[in-house]
Amino acid sequence: MTTPMNQLIRVARGQAEPDLVLINGQVLNVFTGALEEGNVAIADGRIAGIAPDYQGSKQIDCQGLVITPGLIDAHVHIESSLCTPREFGRTVSARGVTTVMADPHEIANVAGTEGILYMHERCRDLPLDVKLMAPSCVPACHLETSGADLGAEELWELKVEGIVHGLAEMMNYPGILNGDPKCMALMESFQEHSVDGHAPQLSGLDLNAYLSTGIGSDHECVSRAEAEEKLAKGMYILIREGTITRDLEALLPMVTPRNMRRICFCTDDRIPADLLTEGSVDFPVRQAIALGLDPLDALCMATLNPAEWFGLRDRGAVSPGRRADLVAWSDLSSLQAVTVLAGGEMIVSDGQWVGADSTQEPAASAAIADTVQVDWDRVSFHIPAPAGASQVRVRVIGSIEKQIVTEALVHALPVVDGGIQADPAVDILKISVIERHGRQGSMASGFIRGFGLQRGALAGTIAHDHHNLMVIGADDASMMRAARAVTDMGGGIAVATADAVLESMPLPVAGLMSDAPIAEVHAQYRRLQEATRQLGGRMYDPLMAMSFMGLEVVPSLKITDRGLVDVDLFDFVSVTA
Amino acid sequence: MTTPMNQLIRVARGQAEPDLVLINGQVLNVFTGALEEGNVAIADGRIAGIAPDYQGSKQIDCQGLVITPGLIDAHVHIESSLCTPREFGRTVSARGVTTVMADPHEIANVAGTEGILYMHERCRDLPLDVKLMAPSCVPACHLETSGADLGAEELWELKVEGIVHGLAEMMNYPGILNGDPKCMALMESFQEHSVDGHAPQLSGLDLNAYLSTGIGSDHECVSRAEAEEKLAKGMYILIREGTITRDLEALLPMVTPRNMRRICFCTDDRIPADLLTEGSVDFPVRQAIALGLDPLDALCMATLNPAEWFGLRDRGAVSPGRRADLVAWSDLSSLQAVTVLAGGEMIVSDGQWVGADSTQEPAASAAIADTVQVDWDRVSFHIPAPAGASQVRVRVIGSIEKQIVTEALVHALPVVDGGIQADPAVDILKISVIERHGRQGSMASGFIRGFGLQRGALAGTIAHDHHNLMVIGADDASMMRAARAVTDMGGGIAVATADAVLESMPLPVAGLMSDAPIAEVHAQYRRLQEATRQLGGRMYDPLMAMSFMGLEVVPSLKITDRGLVDVDLFDFVSVTA
Repeated sequence: MTTPMNQLIRVARGQAEPDLVLINGQVLNVFTGALEEGNVAIADGRIAGIAPDYQGSKQIDCQGLVITPGLIDAHVHIESSLCTPREFGRTVSARGVTTVMADPHEIANVAGTEGILYMHERCRDLPLDVKLMAPSCVPACHLETSGADLGAEELWELKVEGIVHGLAEMMNYPGILNGDPKCMALMESFQEHSVDGHAPQLSGLDLNAYLSTGIGSDHECVSRAEAEEKLAKGMYILIREGTITRDLEALLPMVTPRNMRRICFCTDDRIPADLLTEGSVDFPVRQAIALGLDPLDALCMATLNPAEWFGLRDRGAVSPGRRADLVAWSDLSSLQAVTVLAGGEMIVSDGQWVGADSTQEPAASAAIADTVQVDWDRVSFHIPAPAGASQVRVRVIGSIEKQIVTEALVHALPVVDGGIQADPAVDILKISVIERHGRQGSMASGFIRGFGLQRGALAGTIAHDHHNLMVIGADDASMMRAARAVTDMGGGIAVATADAVLESMPLPVAGLMSDAPIAEVHAQYRRLQEATRQLGGRMYDPLMAMSFMGLEVVPSLKITDRGLVDVDLFDFVSVTA
Repeated sequence: MTTPMNQLIRVARGQAEPDLVLINGQVLNVFTGALEEGNVAIADGRIAGIAPDYQGSKQIDCQGLVITPGLIDAHVHIESSLCTPREFGRTVSARGVTTVMADPHEIANVAGTEGILYMHERCRDLPLDVKLMAPSCVPACHLETSGADLGAEELWELKVEGIVHGLAEMMNYPGILNGDPKCMALMESFQEHSVDGHAPQLSGLDLNAYLSTGIGSDHECVSRAEAEEKLAKGMYILIREGTITRDLEALLPMVTPRNMRRICFCTDDRIPADLLTEGSVDFPVRQAIALGLDPLDALCMATLNPAEWFGLRDRGAVSPGRRADLVAWSDLSSLQAVTVLAGGEMIVSDGQWVGADSTQEPAASAAIADTVQVDWDRVSFHIPAPAGASQVRVRVIGSIEKQIVTEALVHALPVVDGGIQADPAVDILKISVIERHGRQGSMASGFIRGFGLQRGALAGTIAHDHHNLMVIGADDASMMRAARAVTDMGGGIAVATADAVLESMPLPVAGLMSDAPIAEVHAQYRRLQEATRQLGGRMYDPLMAMSFMGLEVVPSLKITDRGLVDVDLFDFVSVTA
């Protein structure tokens, strides 16, 4: 009986014909850092070897091209693409990315284990190899209502079943530092496995404490000094180039021949516009090269290094026995993927997608497709003023362009009919968060500055990390229309005035992802952005900005369905100041 | 409840007192390759952190010393020390070695799974952390009778039970290349785990084929070119400095800043004399430094690198959360271990052993203690000549000083009473291998040159890899006396004449290991060596040389209990040429 292993051996020895041979290319050797001549023989989805001898009836001429291992995105939330795994996979693998380490954190906050299993099912048969990491912080903390609570036992069970590879970003660093029992149980369970960290600004003794539990990477560094301390203390540094978070330029100077082995790249969160124009994790590689990093070093950092951090012995190099995840690039600067093989399957040829067509997505189960349950009887955007007041000093969330931290402001606002009013003239709008998981029926309202709407409202079911229904508007009627439009779609984003819905985008998958092709998602997203601009909006991306206004683990003032949160106090505060 | 993890966090944060603090030392940071100031705080066997802040009531002043992670020997056969694991462990950990990757290949060839379990039991509570690797080739091949046959299922079961860490050196490279079913089953089982290779001289397409099955390291390289090809194809290179095999000087020039991350050190086989004088894996580190390698690089290669190859995330660095396997060295050239901590336990202080005393070894089970069973009725050293011949041309094993390969020679020998005679005058002795596992009762005899005995014989139960009873002598009566002396001891080594046993050394543990202290083992060994010299012996180490004359997987002419083996033909040949 000829097993795949027998056949691979025979091909490697030149005794059997390869399924495919990449000929005439320059092959990156990630172990030596050099380019080598040689034909790459492939059999049964694996690399048999590289040698001038290999030939076959099926060959791809890579003359003038550079062949490397497929890229590995060391940390990404697929949900941030607003697309299903299939559409995301096609988009990034067309770019030469063949493995992503994906944290299904968003869908897990909506649908719990069902959400993770949905991702597992939908990722299983893609050319892109998606390694799921167990979302460590569902919910992010006790100050919000998410759709699920996942404990150490449930997450470890997913590991035992082979559904997750390791533990995703441990964001609850205060929990670690304070010995929170859930955090301790998680860390005990995942000892000796890959545990990604998430510890912005943590340093010194607190960083020591955080790492003492076994956490091994960080993708939140924004300065060279921060990254250098973390690397020196044993963390792999995953340099992030997301849609908002752009850390490459600050961190690149840290790279030395000596420490380079422990530095990787990741995208974390990228919207369709960026995936389609800049790319996926190929983007930081290209940028690093443009900024002066040796191209071969940059490519090793995007291949061998993450394979080592995650203990993926079967990839990250063009060498015998590894997965035939291979990219033939146009050159070492523009880095265009001319040919892409994923597990030996050709998915890009001559720069064109030739993989399986995106067929209709199968319908998702109710746990995924029917996630927006709002108790309208309890919904009111009225913010009561103290009795008799005509003007009230209130706390206002000060949003900052292209940042997810906010300022904590105080403003005086007028009172009408006992309710504190937004004041669009000075760019102070109302913001509400409505629990949409059918759990508590809770909602909270407050004020926000920075969005600039003169009228109308926007609403959406993407709200990190609880993904409740978020509404920002100039008046209550517009807010109600926008909110209703979103729930009528079963989740999504809408821009409305009191009279009409201007634009909307359904996100039927857990209220987070569209089932449309990415180009259509991109177009819808642009129309939504344009609609907010027509209402006076002046944010670069008000939709994404809104989605972070409920993230109460990032300073300074945020709002959840349970109330306004002073992040520094890590507690609720009243709207009135 | 304060768990160890809670306590470690508190110590790291400076909120609780460390169990121990190493103060004032220079600490090697294996991630940056630099020396750093800082006090190393330890709690519950782990490193809490390195910072100037840490203090405690129990401190060790390391002023002027260099603190590094404990060394890791990437591949060793403990049995070659002729000592029990306890005695071996004490010897090497006194040298700063805190982890060894041990292949219990020898004892497994004698006692099968029982032998592996014996090693597991005896290693479990040592300060030295012994990670057992599953011996892949028991027996080495079909041309011998060993004490056990271990298949893929049995070895995988040991992995599932957590008794072995990965698969030890896959020596049967012809089996791999030819798709041998047992080899295939083994490789399929251990996919994605550490699988050590053993492929002397393998290159080109055959090396590709060997690697295509998932093998990831090699410790058999003897030339820079060989090692460079293997590294470029994805193998970790374990540079070996054994008692006989000394590869460092040839291989060190291959080390570059770029490829260094994939190079480690190992000892493979070291006898007591070398362990006591040169040391364990500290020896190649010291030698590499003497030969010009940056000391900090050499130390990283002996710590972080093997930890990475074997996926041991909990060691190989002085960083928060890792095992407190720590060595304070005198300096970076003589590299004397002043203080050694293993899992936080102090075992060497001021250069003196302060760990638990070697108490009496508990008695081993019969499977280990009673392994020498010879059917004396079938033992005869007579080598029949063709009828009527007075002189016969025979094949002669040409042993070579300090090598385990042999030459295939042909000599004419006299016949007396129908038996072909040894001819000590021209250094041609008889060699016999007697099956001693109570399985076949088989034996074979032939001739050997190079040992130089003018009279007498030596015999022993160490005979790689089958460990049958090996006898080399000038006459049959001396051979019989030496062989009988060995079996009377239940295994061991003896030097005898026809009249008397001159020296002997019992090896009651599987016929491979003594239960005496290493100094005593060393003294006995020297007396045996001296006794052979008095008989005319001129080999540097005739005992070890004899033990490799039965290793029929290493060229050119060898002998097993089943006959004389032409290794190139990989088949038996007749004694008469």
